[in-house]
Amino acid sequence: MFDMIAFDADDTLWQNESLYSATQTRLAELLAPYLDGADVDARLYETESRNIPYFGYGIKSFTLSMIETAIALTEGRATSADIQHIITFAKDMIDMPTQLLDGVAEVVARVAATHTLMLITKGDLLDQQRKLDRSGLAEYFAHIEIVADKTEKTYQTILSHYKVDAARFLMVGNSLKSDVLPVVAIGGQAVYVPHTLTWEHERVDPAATQHARYYELVHIGELPELIATLYQQNASDCCIQNRKSEI
Amino acid sequence: MFDMIAFDADDTLWQNESLYSATQTRLAELLAPYLDGADVDARLYETESRNIPYFGYGIKSFTLSMIETAIALTEGRATSADIQHIITFAKDMIDMPTQLLDGVAEVVARVAATHTLMLITKGDLLDQQRKLDRSGLAEYFAHIEIVADKTEKTYQTILSHYKVDAARFLMVGNSLKSDVLPVVAIGGQAVYVPHTLTWEHERVDPAATQHARYYELVHIGELPELIATLYQQNASDCCIQNRKSEI
Repeated sequence: MFDMIAFDADDTLWQNESLYSATQTRLAELLAPYLDGADVDARLYETESRNIPYFGYGIKSFTLSMIETAIALTEGRATSADIQHIITFAKDMIDMPTQLLDGVAEVVARVAATHTLMLITKGDLLDQQRKLDRSGLAEYFAHIEIVADKTEKTYQTILSHYKVDAARFLMVGNSLKSDVLPVVAIGGQAVYVPHTLTWEHERVDPAATQHARYYELVHIGELPELIATLYQQNASDCCIQNRKSEI
Repeated sequence: MFDMIAFDADDTLWQNESLYSATQTRLAELLAPYLDGADVDARLYETESRNIPYFGYGIKSFTLSMIETAIALTEGRATSADIQHIITFAKDMIDMPTQLLDGVAEVVARVAATHTLMLITKGDLLDQQRKLDRSGLAEYFAHIEIVADKTEKTYQTILSHYKVDAARFLMVGNSLKSDVLPVVAIGGQAVYVPHTLTWEHERVDPAATQHARYYELVHIGELPELIATLYQQNASDCCIQNRKSEI
């Protein structure tokens, strides 16, 4: 039924947003002496959104946006030492061990025993590769695709490259915007496993998901059971709208 | 004879180092008021070399290194406005049109008519994709591989992924270190087309090339003729050591 099952990486297999979030706290602490309670997170998000077309996703892009935010919010009073601190935050993020989410190691090993697995992640090439190397999961993935963005076109290109029919492709991830909606739109199947922390940029208007057909699991540990159930059902009758994990 | 011909991108197909070089000049001008003739380029190169394991290649990595260099060289006197200027340099680099090298458009079209072409480039995912999109060459490349680094293992992984025998693979590029030596080491063939500007990091000890067998062309325009000559020769007798472009 599935010729290929693909997983998102950040906040699907391992912690990621929590690392960014902790770094934003460090930034707010660094800038606090200059600011009169200004909302550093909100301003940073504005800067990041404006910079994505230039710098894309990942730690380096985030760092350049932190620097720009620090300069703007302090009206130029941030010192060189502050800026150097921000660059050190980035290096600390890169040095962090990859922290797998609960149940991931077992689920990936189990699904890999019966399916060809692919990792599809966006962000920085070097950083994502490093996280995968440190994760201990690399051996389970037959293919790794690190992409600049996850759009319908991205998935179409990948499926056509690997000669996989969209109907026989299952994507698992924590972002409706990047992992679920574009896959469903091109005729693939998708499993949404929400993470408690979701970056604002990945949020979608609930209306956009209204007509999308995908599966939703509370915990990735339920994935093997969902896949088994799908195999038992008629392939043509497999998708239940916004199905919560009732299995 | 060749199941796949791959091209490097930066300074093989389009100008790249000149853009970095021009930006280094802007950095030196920005810092000149603080410095007593210090060698900004040398110091920047040291910072870049130290940062590559963290930040990899590309404009964002270069920018973070420019910022660190500015802070260190001015002993913290660089202002927020200076740092913001450096980030603007980066955005200017990203906004630059892709400037093809002389003869490239014709050569790529001609070789693509008879061979499957691949682009193998290292650097930043988004930036390299953007340059390719702007280059007008995307249609000629059946496959695009943007990689974190170009080592023997990188090429082995790519060839195994595309099921191409190394002996039937030809790589064309301007870096002995990244495009030529690792390809030759795994049994592939390589064409070295030097560019007038080569980043220090890409330079190799001449001794390392002494026993390597590859072709060298003065101009990429000579590539179709070289390929034609290779087809005429006995495949087993095809590689002439350090051959200068005599054809």
